Amino acid sequence: MAVTKLVLVRHGESQWNNENRFTGWTDVELSDKGRTEAKQAGKQLKAEGFVFDFAYTSVLKRAIHTLWNVLDELDQAWLPVEKSWRLNERHYGALQGLNKAETAEKYGDEQVKQWRRGFAVTPPELTRDDERFPGHDARYANLSADELPTTESLALTIDRVIPFWDESILPRIKSGERVIIAAHGNSIRALVKFLDNLSEEEILELNIPTGVPLVYEFDDNMKPIKHYYLGNADEIAAKAAAVANQGKAK
Amino acid sequence: MAVTKLVLVRHGESQWNNENRFTGWTDVELSDKGRTEAKQAGKQLKAEGFVFDFAYTSVLKRAIHTLWNVLDELDQAWLPVEKSWRLNERHYGALQGLNKAETAEKYGDEQVKQWRRGFAVTPPELTRDDERFPGHDARYANLSADELPTTESLALTIDRVIPFWDESILPRIKSGERVIIAAHGNSIRALVKFLDNLSEEEILELNIPTGVPLVYEFDDNMKPIKHYYLGNADEIAAKAAAVANQGKAK
Repeated sequence: MAVTKLVLVRHGESQWNNENRFTGWTDVELSDKGRTEAKQAGKQLKAEGFVFDFAYTSVLKRAIHTLWNVLDELDQAWLPVEKSWRLNERHYGALQGLNKAETAEKYGDEQVKQWRRGFAVTPPELTRDDERFPGHDARYANLSADELPTTESLALTIDRVIPFWDESILPRIKSGERVIIAAHGNSIRALVKFLDNLSEEEILELNIPTGVPLVYEFDDNMKPIKHYYLGNADEIAAKAAAVANQGKAK
Repeated sequence: MAVTKLVLVRHGESQWNNENRFTGWTDVELSDKGRTEAKQAGKQLKAEGFVFDFAYTSVLKRAIHTLWNVLDELDQAWLPVEKSWRLNERHYGALQGLNKAETAEKYGDEQVKQWRRGFAVTPPELTRDDERFPGHDARYANLSADELPTTESLALTIDRVIPFWDESILPRIKSGERVIIAAHGNSIRALVKFLDNLSEEEILELNIPTGVPLVYEFDDNMKPIKHYYLGNADEIAAKAAAVANQGKAK
C-alpha cells in the first residue's frame, strides 16, 4: 500500500499575534519570531527528507512568507505555488484590528470565546463601505458579491475551504503530487475537521500551533490513516496552549 | 488610445556574477548586492505607481528571489506567479561553472565573445550523464527529451522563449492584465529582439543592466511604441557596460 502524505503549516507569529489583535483578513507581516518559526519548519521538513511537487497558500503575506521561507530551506523556491483567498484566515468582521484582551474586558471572556471558537457564531459584520471590507482590495477583484465576506464563523470558513480542497487540492494529491499547504489557524482547522470528521465540540477545543509541520497520511482511498506534528512534543504542546490562551483577558 | 505596459527586470547580481563564472541553468543565489538591487527595482516601480495583475519568472532562484523582493516592495506578495523554465537563462553547456576570465585566457577573448554573444553559436555540449544535465533535476521532470538542453545559443533560447510569449504572456497582456517578468540577461534579450525586431548584430551588442525595470509600452495592436529604463541614466549605462566587460580576460 502506498502512503500518501500531505503537509499543513500554520504561519509563524505575525506582528498582530504579538500585539494580541484580531487579524482575520488584515494583511499583517510575520514578526521576526514568525520568520524564524517558518525557517525552522522548513529545516524540520528537510531533515525528514520531505520533497514537494506543488504548494498552496492564501493571499495573505504572513502565510505566503511562511511558505517562501519553507521553500527556501528545502531549496525548492522553484515549486509551482497557487495562492487562493479560500485558504485565508477566517474573516473576523468588525473585530479586525481590535486587541483581544481589551475586547474580552469589554464583552467578557465567554463572548470572545464564542466569537473565536463558536462553530457557527459570526463576529459583528463589517459594513461594505468600511475600508476593511475585502471588496475594496484588488486581490479580491475576481470574487463575486456572495463570496466577499463581511464576517465569518468557522462554519462559513469551512464552506469556502472545502470546495477548494475538493476541486483543486485533492485531485492533485490523487494524481500523485506531494503537496504542502501554508495557511492559517482557522483554514487549517476547517481542513482538519473535514479530514478527521471531527464534531463541532472537538474542533472548538483544537488548537493548531504556529510554524509546526502537521503531516497527514492517507491510504489508497484517500482516507486519513494518521497525522502527527514534526518536532519536539513538549514545545508543540506549549505552542498550542499559547494559542488557546490568546483570547483571555489580561 | 490606451497604453499597455509590460515591465521586464533582469535579476540582480548573483554569487557567480560576482565570481565571474558562467552560470546558465546553475541555480545560484543572489548576492547581498543582488538582493539590494532587486529591492531598489521594487522601490522604483512603487515610486512610479506601478501595480501588477500577474507575474512571470523562471525556475531559477536568482530570478524568483528578485521577483519576491520586488513584490514585497510593492506590497503585492499575493500576486499570482507563473514560473517557467522557458524564461531561464541561456543554457551554457559544458562552460557552466567555469570562470569567464580563465576561459578567456584559455580560448581567447574572441572565442568567449562568440560563445557569449554569437547569435547561433553554442558552447560545448554537456553529456547527458553529466550531473549538470537538467534531466537530473526534478524541476525539469515534465520536459520532453527534445526540450532538455545540453547547450544553447541565443537563437535556441529565442526558440523556447517566444512560444511562451505567444501562448501564455501575450494573451494575458491582451486581456488587460498588467504583467511583470523577472528573468535573465538572455531570456530578456530574446524577448527584446523579438519585440523590437532587432537584427542579429544589434542584439549582439545589447546589454541588459541588472535589477533595473525596463518598461515597454504597446499600442492597441500590441505594437511596441517605446521602451525605457526606470532610474538614473548614468547608473544604468555603467551597469550595462559592466555586463559587457564580464567576458574579457583580466
